[in-house]
Amino acid sequence: MARLPHEPLQYHMYSGPPSNVANLPPQQKHIGHFFISDTLRHELTEKNFARLNYTSTDPSIPNEVNQYHSLMPLEDTDRGTRGAIGYVTVVYKAQSSRDGLIYALRRIEGFRLMNEDAMSVVETWRKIQHPNIASLYEAFTTTVFDDNSLVLVYDYYPLAVTMRDFYFGQSGMAPSGAVGPVQHNQSIPEATLWSYVIQLASALSTVHAMGLAFRTITLEHILMIDKHRLSLDRAGILDLVTYDMPGNVTQFQREDLSCIGRILIILACGNLHALTHTKEALAFIQRTYSASFKQVIMYLLGRLGPGRNVEDLLRIVGPRIFDELNAQQRQNDLLQAELSRELENARLVRLLTKFGFINERPEFNREADWSETGDRYLIKLFRDFVFHQVDEHGRPVVDMAHVLTCLNKLDAGVSERVMLTSRDEQSCLIVSYRDIKQCIENAFHELQQ
Amino acid sequence: MARLPHEPLQYHMYSGPPSNVANLPPQQKHIGHFFISDTLRHELTEKNFARLNYTSTDPSIPNEVNQYHSLMPLEDTDRGTRGAIGYVTVVYKAQSSRDGLIYALRRIEGFRLMNEDAMSVVETWRKIQHPNIASLYEAFTTTVFDDNSLVLVYDYYPLAVTMRDFYFGQSGMAPSGAVGPVQHNQSIPEATLWSYVIQLASALSTVHAMGLAFRTITLEHILMIDKHRLSLDRAGILDLVTYDMPGNVTQFQREDLSCIGRILIILACGNLHALTHTKEALAFIQRTYSASFKQVIMYLLGRLGPGRNVEDLLRIVGPRIFDELNAQQRQNDLLQAELSRELENARLVRLLTKFGFINERPEFNREADWSETGDRYLIKLFRDFVFHQVDEHGRPVVDMAHVLTCLNKLDAGVSERVMLTSRDEQSCLIVSYRDIKQCIENAFHELQQ
Repeated sequence: MARLPHEPLQYHMYSGPPSNVANLPPQQKHIGHFFISDTLRHELTEKNFARLNYTSTDPSIPNEVNQYHSLMPLEDTDRGTRGAIGYVTVVYKAQSSRDGLIYALRRIEGFRLMNEDAMSVVETWRKIQHPNIASLYEAFTTTVFDDNSLVLVYDYYPLAVTMRDFYFGQSGMAPSGAVGPVQHNQSIPEATLWSYVIQLASALSTVHAMGLAFRTITLEHILMIDKHRLSLDRAGILDLVTYDMPGNVTQFQREDLSCIGRILIILACGNLHALTHTKEALAFIQRTYSASFKQVIMYLLGRLGPGRNVEDLLRIVGPRIFDELNAQQRQNDLLQAELSRELENARLVRLLTKFGFINERPEFNREADWSETGDRYLIKLFRDFVFHQVDEHGRPVVDMAHVLTCLNKLDAGVSERVMLTSRDEQSCLIVSYRDIKQCIENAFHELQQ
Repeated sequence: MARLPHEPLQYHMYSGPPSNVANLPPQQKHIGHFFISDTLRHELTEKNFARLNYTSTDPSIPNEVNQYHSLMPLEDTDRGTRGAIGYVTVVYKAQSSRDGLIYALRRIEGFRLMNEDAMSVVETWRKIQHPNIASLYEAFTTTVFDDNSLVLVYDYYPLAVTMRDFYFGQSGMAPSGAVGPVQHNQSIPEATLWSYVIQLASALSTVHAMGLAFRTITLEHILMIDKHRLSLDRAGILDLVTYDMPGNVTQFQREDLSCIGRILIILACGNLHALTHTKEALAFIQRTYSASFKQVIMYLLGRLGPGRNVEDLLRIVGPRIFDELNAQQRQNDLLQAELSRELENARLVRLLTKFGFINERPEFNREADWSETGDRYLIKLFRDFVFHQVDEHGRPVVDMAHVLTCLNKLDAGVSERVMLTSRDEQSCLIVSYRDIKQCIENAFHELQQ
């Protein structure tokens, strides 16, 4: 199955999906991490929209903060609460004028940085780049919000919601009495919960190996950035705010694992208040999920012994991690197959645009018939050949396959010849696609001068 | 960071790459599984070409085998050798007339199936769908090759090469004396070898859990289907050929693990004959790679005790599996970012094609001026507005951004208005993009009738 010698590459070749993608059974296409192919474009467009959307008219928001402009507050259920760090925080989407990219700015209100050395924390966290962690890029203090604010700059994920909003709505008003979801079919599938365990363990593995810890992780700290894909938000924020109160890192790392255990209980029970009835919650989990899932929770909570670390956690997860790996690989195959199909269109847009610039141009260089003479006449006849053919009854041939084949051959500049007929049918010319390609390049070059 | 209400979706919005992709350091973009973005299109086109390529003129190859046509032999270093199964096999690329997809047909020459029950093996292997295993779809006997042949139908991977060809060339003529690669910098990086261990372990995990085994895995059985992405070929072939000689599955599964251990030694030493000097080979590995890498080889070979299984292997691999998972997730992010960019072009191609069909059509329905009157006149003026603008010196405005913005607004049918001027500059019309969109749809509909 070796590479075949062929030169030049035949860019007019199209092909269907590979059998390993086309033959996936429907349930494998839909479960886990898979996009439904029909909705992929819609999802990506929605994301582009979210990234560009800028509708803020709040006069209290400054026009610029350092290099960041177009600030727009993002919805945030934490708004107004002091949270784990003891300060109110607000998140803005903003564009950097340095690289043009969109970032999420988390502002800590009314925070006065007492010790400039604390910024060294940012340097350490900056080094962490992990697909399940929103990277911290920089931090700075500012007074443009009419107070002393500390701003931390993170990755922005369009359409991301916190895990709390995703599962419990923005009100978070799940019934507080009962443990377990109101309707049984609302339970989160165990495979999804294992996927979360693995993604979070992967993130913690990197952070803990650097001698760092998140120190607190709640449902509000976890962003759902894609179907079942997580990203841990607010990296390093506690280290920065409590710089003058260092603690025991091993203890903090264990606390990270405990936090994940608590999150799993809440998710498995589908109830924000499940932790106030831990015994009933664990009984519910035992009835609903597998023994090894309950075991991983017990381990995370330290009920199987106080010493805990990510490597041991991996042992409990076991071969389930392969499911996660396979789902990711399959999604890669799917995305690559989608990309293969869309691949050629950018070329065709450029080519059709050149036709647009050249054909029927009213005048050029004071020549009224520029677009009808010389090379351009050939281009016009070719355009007629591609788009204006009629069948034996004089009906238009509206055949997308004919158009695409012609355009692809033209773009590839193949040596195949084509017969072009003048509109009065009195003369005809036989030219190769390569010649026509050259004509178009000459004419377009002339226009650009 | 919640979803914003907006209706209809603004399809003319474009946006740049997300910060978590754009800010990846260059070394993270290139290592491991990453495509270099510039070459992605080239790679995908090459794959499309390989999938479609059909140049076989060998008269000994039949036109059709069951539902498969366009057979083309694939290069195969095994050609002519009897291999592990004791029969000569040949691989063909072929297209199925049932689903139009391309498959790889492995033909076992001169094989007479004595026991029809053996086909039940295929039913069992068919159930296995794994991203690192070439799926087996069906098997059948045939006489169209002028002998008794057994044909097994697998996934076809364009441009795939066997691991042997990939690392040792088609001659396989590495120097047989020295252990270790001729030049030290030819060593395969340890991270790559760990990635192979994990992918193969993942495949074996699924196969062994089904109570099956490959029974033999050599460098020829492993296909390199993408940069560092593996797929195990020839699933079930030994079970089918030796159906009447059943053996101990646990023993076969251990043999699978031993095979991987031997493959790792060959790869780590960069020498096909490393196994004939195992002691020196292991000493070389000890000098060149980490202790845990040597340990995994010892485990696979059964030197740490005879009992071996994939779950234990996972324990030795440990947190390295997260590297694999992260690389896959990052590749997903990268592919999704690429797809986001290409997304809008398919739409634009369709739109520009409609312009082509409508504008300057010589006649329609016996009306010579169809394309210059009614709705079509508006479309023509809009086309001039998009493509034929001139600056104050009469020079053509060749501005791709202007073209794309106009076309995207048109496709979205926004209510924004635009002033169109007749060519004689005597009249002008103010119309919305929405109106023009409607005109184009009417005119195109008329053509299609």
